[in-house]
Amino acid sequence: MAKEQLRVFKIGGKVVEDDRQLSDFLQSFAKLYENKILVHGGGLWVSEMSRRLGIEVKMIDGRRITDADTLEVVKMMLAGVANKNVVCKLQKYNCNAIGLTGVDGDTILAERRPLKNGIDYGFVGDVKKVNHEVIQKLINAGLVPVFAAMTHDGLGNLFNTNADTIASSVAVGMAKDFDVELNYCFELNGVLKDINDPASVIHEITQNNYSQLKAEGIISSGMIPKIDNAFDALKSGVKAIRIMNSKHIADLAEGAAQIGTLIMK
Amino acid sequence: MAKEQLRVFKIGGKVVEDDRQLSDFLQSFAKLYENKILVHGGGLWVSEMSRRLGIEVKMIDGRRITDADTLEVVKMMLAGVANKNVVCKLQKYNCNAIGLTGVDGDTILAERRPLKNGIDYGFVGDVKKVNHEVIQKLINAGLVPVFAAMTHDGLGNLFNTNADTIASSVAVGMAKDFDVELNYCFELNGVLKDINDPASVIHEITQNNYSQLKAEGIISSGMIPKIDNAFDALKSGVKAIRIMNSKHIADLAEGAAQIGTLIMK
Repeated sequence: MAKEQLRVFKIGGKVVEDDRQLSDFLQSFAKLYENKILVHGGGLWVSEMSRRLGIEVKMIDGRRITDADTLEVVKMMLAGVANKNVVCKLQKYNCNAIGLTGVDGDTILAERRPLKNGIDYGFVGDVKKVNHEVIQKLINAGLVPVFAAMTHDGLGNLFNTNADTIASSVAVGMAKDFDVELNYCFELNGVLKDINDPASVIHEITQNNYSQLKAEGIISSGMIPKIDNAFDALKSGVKAIRIMNSKHIADLAEGAAQIGTLIMK
Repeated sequence: MAKEQLRVFKIGGKVVEDDRQLSDFLQSFAKLYENKILVHGGGLWVSEMSRRLGIEVKMIDGRRITDADTLEVVKMMLAGVANKNVVCKLQKYNCNAIGLTGVDGDTILAERRPLKNGIDYGFVGDVKKVNHEVIQKLINAGLVPVFAAMTHDGLGNLFNTNADTIASSVAVGMAKDFDVELNYCFELNGVLKDINDPASVIHEITQNNYSQLKAEGIISSGMIPKIDNAFDALKSGVKAIRIMNSKHIADLAEGAAQIGTLIMK
């Protein structure tokens, strides 16, 4: 039997934290007819509130060191403000969203990240398991899951977890039940041949042209881990990964063919 | 066909904000074999964080005046910290809890409270409708709903809403599908004949003995609106309301017969 389609979207803090951009994005998201899941960040708000409360903001390679005080701020700003703002707007656009973190319904189990190169990331979780059955039941109930990027270990600990990782883990987890497309939304139009030319989008990357694009130095080093992760998701059953500008979701909702960079087998 | 049993519990901020009390309560709550829903407050944390952020705390007759800044704090501390702490502990005790506010799954619709005696309560919502079908689907999916006391109007506005009111509205809403007992947990052993004697619990209040208890001045004036509300809930289909000490939930889980004050038709 053919599986139903499911789109997993990830949006970053820049979209969530700008009321106008967020409204525009969610209005189009609400119109997508496929099953869908949204994963959002909100890191800038966490940093801002940490500073207001006198909590030091520590980042290493773009990852937040999450001590006990910072974890409280993550609960406040991600699971609280960001998640409820997103869900509230979606309800306004007649999309029956339900806000979640990985602890809700035991949807995303993680384990605390061990020391890496001597660095203690604190309350940061690495995903172990996505409970796809629970998420499927929510979807079957007509609900649209909206995940704030937090997980838990089942032992009473909550963790801060990278939103990109949550999105790909959820996409892989749901691939058992659905044909999944994973959509990473950011501020560029896709993977660009020339970072200074927004029109230079590489429309399709497959294993075949990827090696060549890398060999020719066309894909920048910063993009390589992202694309490697995308191929991992493909190997784990996700049908396609799209890297796109969050502003182009309206085109997606209207059925436009070529949006962003599509990564396929 | 006989309906299944459902218990709706309400716990206040004093239980939520004390880690030890909360653990004790939730450990017993997790053991209850009936279908169950938990509604929690967390107002002291809202006041405390408001003060840390330099936001004035304004209360009138125990109700919080919720301006735009205070609403952000309510999202942070109720929907964020309090709700996720409760859900995380319940997961530890093998209870598959899912954290919600009224905006999630459009479960509790409200309208902004109109001016009352010239007082603008701000972003405070009065419950209009509980979408019992969605809540029932969550319960049928094996999930235990845990509500932070917030609602929305479907037009993009979130509201702060009294947790007692949420509990009774949810209990009434679910009475269509279940035999519902509404359990109000607080720090006393029940409705007391003598406020200074914790053993003087009135075990049962019905319409018959209520008038007499009031006439004899045995029930204090502070308790009368609570009990009147309980009779309203009975009229709307709730089977019983129990006013009990949150510490006695362990006895309830063990099947003890007489706990707190039971209000029945």
